[in-house]
Amino acid sequence: MKPRIKELLGTKPSEQHIVIEGWVRTCRDSGSLCFIELTDGSCLSGIQIIAESSLKNYADEVRNLSTGTAIKATGTLVESPAKGQTVEVRAESIEILGPADPSTYPLQKKRHSFEFLRSISHLRPRTNALGAVARIRSELNFAIHRFFRDQGFFQVHTPLITTSDCEGAGEMFTVTALSDKELGKENPFAQDFFGRKASLTVSGQLQAEIYALSHGRVYTFGPTFRAENSNTSRHLAEFWMLEPEMAFCDLNCDMEIAEALIQDLISTVLANCADDLDLFNRFVSKGLIGKLETACQQPFTRMTYSQAIQELEGVKQQFEYPVAWGSDLQAEHERFLCEEIAGRPVIVIDYPKTIKPFYMRQNEDGKTVAAMDILVPGIGELVGGSQREERLDLLTARMQEDGLGLEEYSWYLDLRRYGSVPHSGFGLGFERLVQFVTGMSNIRDVIPFPRHPAMLPADK
Amino acid sequence: MKPRIKELLGTKPSEQHIVIEGWVRTCRDSGSLCFIELTDGSCLSGIQIIAESSLKNYADEVRNLSTGTAIKATGTLVESPAKGQTVEVRAESIEILGPADPSTYPLQKKRHSFEFLRSISHLRPRTNALGAVARIRSELNFAIHRFFRDQGFFQVHTPLITTSDCEGAGEMFTVTALSDKELGKENPFAQDFFGRKASLTVSGQLQAEIYALSHGRVYTFGPTFRAENSNTSRHLAEFWMLEPEMAFCDLNCDMEIAEALIQDLISTVLANCADDLDLFNRFVSKGLIGKLETACQQPFTRMTYSQAIQELEGVKQQFEYPVAWGSDLQAEHERFLCEEIAGRPVIVIDYPKTIKPFYMRQNEDGKTVAAMDILVPGIGELVGGSQREERLDLLTARMQEDGLGLEEYSWYLDLRRYGSVPHSGFGLGFERLVQFVTGMSNIRDVIPFPRHPAMLPADK
Repeated sequence: MKPRIKELLGTKPSEQHIVIEGWVRTCRDSGSLCFIELTDGSCLSGIQIIAESSLKNYADEVRNLSTGTAIKATGTLVESPAKGQTVEVRAESIEILGPADPSTYPLQKKRHSFEFLRSISHLRPRTNALGAVARIRSELNFAIHRFFRDQGFFQVHTPLITTSDCEGAGEMFTVTALSDKELGKENPFAQDFFGRKASLTVSGQLQAEIYALSHGRVYTFGPTFRAENSNTSRHLAEFWMLEPEMAFCDLNCDMEIAEALIQDLISTVLANCADDLDLFNRFVSKGLIGKLETACQQPFTRMTYSQAIQELEGVKQQFEYPVAWGSDLQAEHERFLCEEIAGRPVIVIDYPKTIKPFYMRQNEDGKTVAAMDILVPGIGELVGGSQREERLDLLTARMQEDGLGLEEYSWYLDLRRYGSVPHSGFGLGFERLVQFVTGMSNIRDVIPFPRHPAMLPADK
Repeated sequence: MKPRIKELLGTKPSEQHIVIEGWVRTCRDSGSLCFIELTDGSCLSGIQIIAESSLKNYADEVRNLSTGTAIKATGTLVESPAKGQTVEVRAESIEILGPADPSTYPLQKKRHSFEFLRSISHLRPRTNALGAVARIRSELNFAIHRFFRDQGFFQVHTPLITTSDCEGAGEMFTVTALSDKELGKENPFAQDFFGRKASLTVSGQLQAEIYALSHGRVYTFGPTFRAENSNTSRHLAEFWMLEPEMAFCDLNCDMEIAEALIQDLISTVLANCADDLDLFNRFVSKGLIGKLETACQQPFTRMTYSQAIQELEGVKQQFEYPVAWGSDLQAEHERFLCEEIAGRPVIVIDYPKTIKPFYMRQNEDGKTVAAMDILVPGIGELVGGSQREERLDLLTARMQEDGLGLEEYSWYLDLRRYGSVPHSGFGLGFERLVQFVTGMSNIRDVIPFPRHPAMLPADK
């Protein structure tokens, strides 16, 4: 395939004849020639094209090239006298592939608010910031697969449509193939596609446990859903979640893998996305790169939930939600712990049993479970995980306490009946990771097409 | 982390002290010692553990170890005198982590039908064949990400919940947050989560085009849905689809990328999953490896749709569906073309416009479009792709012919209004690829948790 701008910018000037295609970012006419900055999305930088007035379509087309116009240029790759670039293209011909009428094209050369860009989600990836988010998101995505493969994990595609409520982690969307008319009938779902009511999953964990107990180390990474009517900058109805699950692995092992993963991912982005990160560091979140370097170079602070409560009770800070042993930590508490107290990511372990789901392993104290949350500056909870209860009797008792149907979960209990082993896992909210790495404050700006209540038609 | 069986089998005997955890596949008592085959899912092979009667729990536990029991063994890694393995473990201690009562555990040491295994989807990955499917599926998954990253592609997470019907590629599931009672009301979806009726996507292509026109080369890979009531071995309601989309790429370029991808994926599995493939070659689909080698070593046969029709009309074979120019090719025709006529994968191009969707680029002849399907032996269509219509006037006219609302698609038309370029893409059904590579005949056996009509409760 033809070389792209990222590759060309990394090569030496060679008087090599090239063909380059992309979109005009700017075109500056200096009388006898013009300077075109061309971008193709392969990297943040554009490449400079020098077009001389001797080009046959110079007067009619070239010197009037407007932002967003698609062109194909042929020419030679030569040394650039300009600052900040080693090569540029001396054009021999320039052909317009697709125009972009400046009187109607919404993306002119000026800064647009992220709010405005959300209203044109089909054009916003063409901007510098949203284009960079997409590249970093893709790099993180690949780094996740690479990390786990290197560690001997297998990826498992857990299902999105489910007919069991599972952990009750949140409000679920109903999935139906019934017509509007059929939906109006009494007890309609018995006649539905799956013969019973079906929903969109809130977690792939329970199914991932199945494969952890056959393949040892697995992960699932895919879309997850919440039907909660939270119209905020922190919530999405559809988001991506990473859920590894490891057999023969206790809570310590769980924490080690999660910490190694996060540090590996951040290091990867620091190494491979330097230009894009620099943009966020300068224009979106000052100090971002320093924060990321701290996070990947120093071990995370570890404390128990009880210690965390003690720390928070000891500070002067006025919180909106009260701090008390037995209540869940709120985002404000989580952020205070890592931003003000630790100055880096914090792992909190051993949460009260009463605020955690049934599948978490009970500790000896009878009051807490082997849970761990990883909190990061600016975000709060990035990871939530636990060692799973592998003891059939304790798991059954806990499920009965919670009023869960043992029949419905008999397959899950089978995993403890046959070849049960200590095992652990965690969930990492992928958009929160992208926010942490880019410093973007609104979760709707780190996913290509955010799904949330009150979507505009333009959100599709 | 502790070494796994795959790693141990690849090391030299060293009298090294090791700890190994896994599940008992078989335990054979020969009087003074027993031979335990232990598996941990990291590979098809188990490792042999030699347990001597001097172990303190030998009589009570070790010699009665039953299939599926989880154990932790310590010992030394020594040279094995047995055939087919270079190392084995001489046990110093064996601890039972989780028993598996042989009187109730469904997976005893015998061959089970795939049909039976479908009824215990939470245990079937522990079997040799389904365990191998999961490993190959995971390897293909990683190879896809690696291939595209090497070629400068970015991954885009296109949304699963959509409020537009898009290409009308099939029946869609409705997604709703309304209660059963609210669903019974008149025109309920205006009050629903998204303020209008929402569905599960049938393709991420149109959104992928958005990113192809900002980032050049992108792909989306995720779950896709069809609410078609097809209770067959070829259909799923939820399946994974890979959809690359490339700017500055015509139909030839599209075919080249698809062929290179498929050959790369097959070569990767041949190289990295030899043991698992051997199992399928011997027990599931004789000649499988030869078929895969042919597919990845020889170029695919190319023909136009018109040539394909001519070929099919010229053979003696009686088809269930008639062969006629203007009708779509059926699976029987597709398979005949590659199995009987070409003896390898076939790419068919230039289909009649009337049987293809609106977004495909119209050819000069006025009758056909720049479409391409890749057909493979045993499966039929594996890939369907096309060059997209990038000309605003032709696209608009075609959409009007098809009765599509231009307002609803104005965002899609914007991609042709502003900086339009020749671009192409394709969709590859991931489960069909896994079937092709493993030779498994039922699509429900190549996805962890198949979603289909009339699911059993055990399918969850």
